[in-house]
Amino acid sequence: MAKQAKTAVNPTRNEDYPEWYQQVVKVSELAEASPVRGCMVIKPWGYALWENMVRVLDDMFKETGVKNAYFPLFIPLEFMEKEAAHVEGFAKECAVVTHHRLESDGKGGLKPAGELAEPLIVRPTSETIIGAQFAKWVTSYRDLPLLINQWANVVRWEMRTRTFLRTSEFLWQEGHTAHSSSEEAQSRTKMMLDVYKKFVEDYLAIPVLQGRKSESEKFPGAVETLCIESMMQDKKALQTGTSHFLGQNFSKASGIKFQNEEGNEELAYTTSWGASTRMIGGIIMVHGDDDGIMLPPRVASAHVVILPVFPKNADKDVIISFCDNIYDELKNLKYFDKNLRIEKDYRDVPGKNWDWIKKGVPLRIEVGPRDIENNCAMVSRRDLGLKEKKAYEINELKSQVCDILDSIHCSMFERAKDFLKKNTKEIDSKDDFVSFFNPKNEEKPEIHGGFAVSPWCGEADCEEKIKEDLKVTIRCLPFDFKINQGEKCIYCNKDAKEKAVFAKAY
Amino acid sequence: MAKQAKTAVNPTRNEDYPEWYQQVVKVSELAEASPVRGCMVIKPWGYALWENMVRVLDDMFKETGVKNAYFPLFIPLEFMEKEAAHVEGFAKECAVVTHHRLESDGKGGLKPAGELAEPLIVRPTSETIIGAQFAKWVTSYRDLPLLINQWANVVRWEMRTRTFLRTSEFLWQEGHTAHSSSEEAQSRTKMMLDVYKKFVEDYLAIPVLQGRKSESEKFPGAVETLCIESMMQDKKALQTGTSHFLGQNFSKASGIKFQNEEGNEELAYTTSWGASTRMIGGIIMVHGDDDGIMLPPRVASAHVVILPVFPKNADKDVIISFCDNIYDELKNLKYFDKNLRIEKDYRDVPGKNWDWIKKGVPLRIEVGPRDIENNCAMVSRRDLGLKEKKAYEINELKSQVCDILDSIHCSMFERAKDFLKKNTKEIDSKDDFVSFFNPKNEEKPEIHGGFAVSPWCGEADCEEKIKEDLKVTIRCLPFDFKINQGEKCIYCNKDAKEKAVFAKAY
Repeated sequence: MAKQAKTAVNPTRNEDYPEWYQQVVKVSELAEASPVRGCMVIKPWGYALWENMVRVLDDMFKETGVKNAYFPLFIPLEFMEKEAAHVEGFAKECAVVTHHRLESDGKGGLKPAGELAEPLIVRPTSETIIGAQFAKWVTSYRDLPLLINQWANVVRWEMRTRTFLRTSEFLWQEGHTAHSSSEEAQSRTKMMLDVYKKFVEDYLAIPVLQGRKSESEKFPGAVETLCIESMMQDKKALQTGTSHFLGQNFSKASGIKFQNEEGNEELAYTTSWGASTRMIGGIIMVHGDDDGIMLPPRVASAHVVILPVFPKNADKDVIISFCDNIYDELKNLKYFDKNLRIEKDYRDVPGKNWDWIKKGVPLRIEVGPRDIENNCAMVSRRDLGLKEKKAYEINELKSQVCDILDSIHCSMFERAKDFLKKNTKEIDSKDDFVSFFNPKNEEKPEIHGGFAVSPWCGEADCEEKIKEDLKVTIRCLPFDFKINQGEKCIYCNKDAKEKAVFAKAY
Repeated sequence: MAKQAKTAVNPTRNEDYPEWYQQVVKVSELAEASPVRGCMVIKPWGYALWENMVRVLDDMFKETGVKNAYFPLFIPLEFMEKEAAHVEGFAKECAVVTHHRLESDGKGGLKPAGELAEPLIVRPTSETIIGAQFAKWVTSYRDLPLLINQWANVVRWEMRTRTFLRTSEFLWQEGHTAHSSSEEAQSRTKMMLDVYKKFVEDYLAIPVLQGRKSESEKFPGAVETLCIESMMQDKKALQTGTSHFLGQNFSKASGIKFQNEEGNEELAYTTSWGASTRMIGGIIMVHGDDDGIMLPPRVASAHVVILPVFPKNADKDVIISFCDNIYDELKNLKYFDKNLRIEKDYRDVPGKNWDWIKKGVPLRIEVGPRDIENNCAMVSRRDLGLKEKKAYEINELKSQVCDILDSIHCSMFERAKDFLKKNTKEIDSKDDFVSFFNPKNEEKPEIHGGFAVSPWCGEADCEEKIKEDLKVTIRCLPFDFKINQGEKCIYCNKDAKEKAVFAKAY
């Protein structure tokens, strides 16, 4: 295949998907690597996207009664030691603070000093430290449910990092709730999964599958982990949110007890649920194309950019004043309850249109002298071909801009849904299953079939064998697919217990 | 003095101001200590306050063209070594990460493993790491000004901590800007100080003095540090925001260079400015009373609480439904561009009114059976005496609630302004100066005169002597007081260079 020189991103998705991803992160100006191994710098364009995501999700949490709080960055080592299963899963790779001072090393440099009596762990997640506070806050059934969320940075020492998808430090929210009954806690677990689904579908325009994790894939220490999984354009799965029912496991370790209505002491039932900057990786991989990222309008860093075009001999002031007028006409419009976010790019430099295509702004409004004569502007939608521009009279633009934005959201969501549907196959023969994940085209091992929905015996050994043989894992045991009487496991042919979604995954 | 048993906070401000402060933090449910030394847990009521403060301040920054971004939590040791003056001031007490793994210690516990080749510092402030990125982002005068802000947690290993005022970990924002001229950078430094003043006065209802720091009190590495200082009820000063003109000091260390319009390479001029959760300590100490905190309405965690009163034999459902109706009537009102924040406390427990007094909600709306008969509610303002209740007919309440809230803001601000004015004295005799800070009443060394505005020679030795002798520091060299020809230094009697504000300080 001839190298495409006309795309803004090189290589293209077809040529080298992983490298395409890294290039999109770069040319879209979302983020960049930092001098600290595995940590990213989220640039203003990427951070504005995150802020918009946070505000929407935060409002959704609050509507369910959740309140925000903030807990310490550091966790005492002894807390990590309390919860055996949890530590097994998390504590191995984390940042450990051992000193609280720097002093001269006598050679013009600095060295750590003031060794701590007990090392502190930079939080990889906060179950243990939040559990300790919950134990103080909860004494009676009247204190329950306790519904708390935290927006925070967390650190997991990752060996191989990729911006947004897997970084040593990332930003996230972690919700933690405590309840007086198992049923109520389970229902909260599902409720928050539904919030994630609604957010990711309705705001990020990314369709999701909901399900629960298999025993081997669930959160360390959880009774049950629910998740949402989405399909990237390379047909791999990305988990974009999880919600855990922790039963009494963490309340036992932390001592979260309450006196029930009958006056007896009981352990509380807890949940936790989280979503992170990883979702931005999902936006890139679901919506990006060979020209850069495509931002979902409802959370886009900016909705609109106004781009005056300055031909030679044109009166710049006239063009700029016309653009300022468009800005004033649009700036007070509300789109999804928020003011329309408008950027002005009045630089007189060649190719500035391309900067905004790469950055994925949903609407570009170009204005040149001829447009001014017609009281018009040329409008380009990021989801359509680069040459599809449409002239709008200014009042018409004002009355339609929010509808256009929303039609971009819908078209992005429909496109992603079609892709997911097309590449999700119900497979019930082992041969088809194997060749689905090992296509004949050996030159492109990254090209595979997508999501296989197949019957599974429910046994960890079989799951492990599939992982070893085919490099695919069980993404979830989906809510929307039910097993039929008599079905056999797709791999070992024992009696099947449930349907599983198999896929390669990030 | 007889112990006052009728106050919600014990001891009272007069009895023991520092302990009163700690008790207010506790009974108001703003925050509490955590199991990690020096780190605080910000509880939902405190975090909601912080969130409201963040949203207002963030909008004010953005109005000046600032964009948010996010930089790594960790700073490589070599970055700290680059900037000698900066390190001298900051690097001594900080959290040092030396390992990236935990492993079994063979005794059922865990121990640090995986030693890092180079230790990492948990950011005490981000000048150095942000400077490294700025050096990459800036190449031409066209890239300037670069106006970036970060909301983040920072860690400074403090030996003696007090919730909100001095904690090892705290939340803050740090703005960092780069400019092509010294004048522009200086003007930005002042602009951001003005933003802080406007925010602290117009939203927190705390009057401030603006000025610049003396050489010995300025930020390590800065050319000039501007600050706002406020007076607490014990007449001590609290610095609630600083804005630094860094000249070319940090751009030299970080290599932030640009090609100017003439094509020559120049070092950029930078600024930084920050405000933190410390401001919450200021709110407590300026507005709190012996019954708890008093929240400034424009940022209050909630504006209003609805408190049904349930006498024996009353029909609870009728009362609750009347309260729900009040809630529905008020919930869509806008106060300072935000929806009115309303809490409902429908518990049937004695003394719940007191919980909300201690938590400082600006308005309490009580509803009992007799109020319902009159289609009324009893309204209490937190800034007035506990027994001053006023009946409002519901429609009247709806039309006036926002005005009442704002009149609370104004009365809180006026009260604090009067206090500041009354306790700020222009003093020009050394005897008066000494006795201002060492009043006769030796039994209460914490009671002193407040802010002394006095002529100063400008010399560090003299400043140091005043500090040693009287335990007071120069809070700022105030913008609003000018030195007169021929004035002599208040302490050493040399020629005075400027007026200084002297005070004991947090």
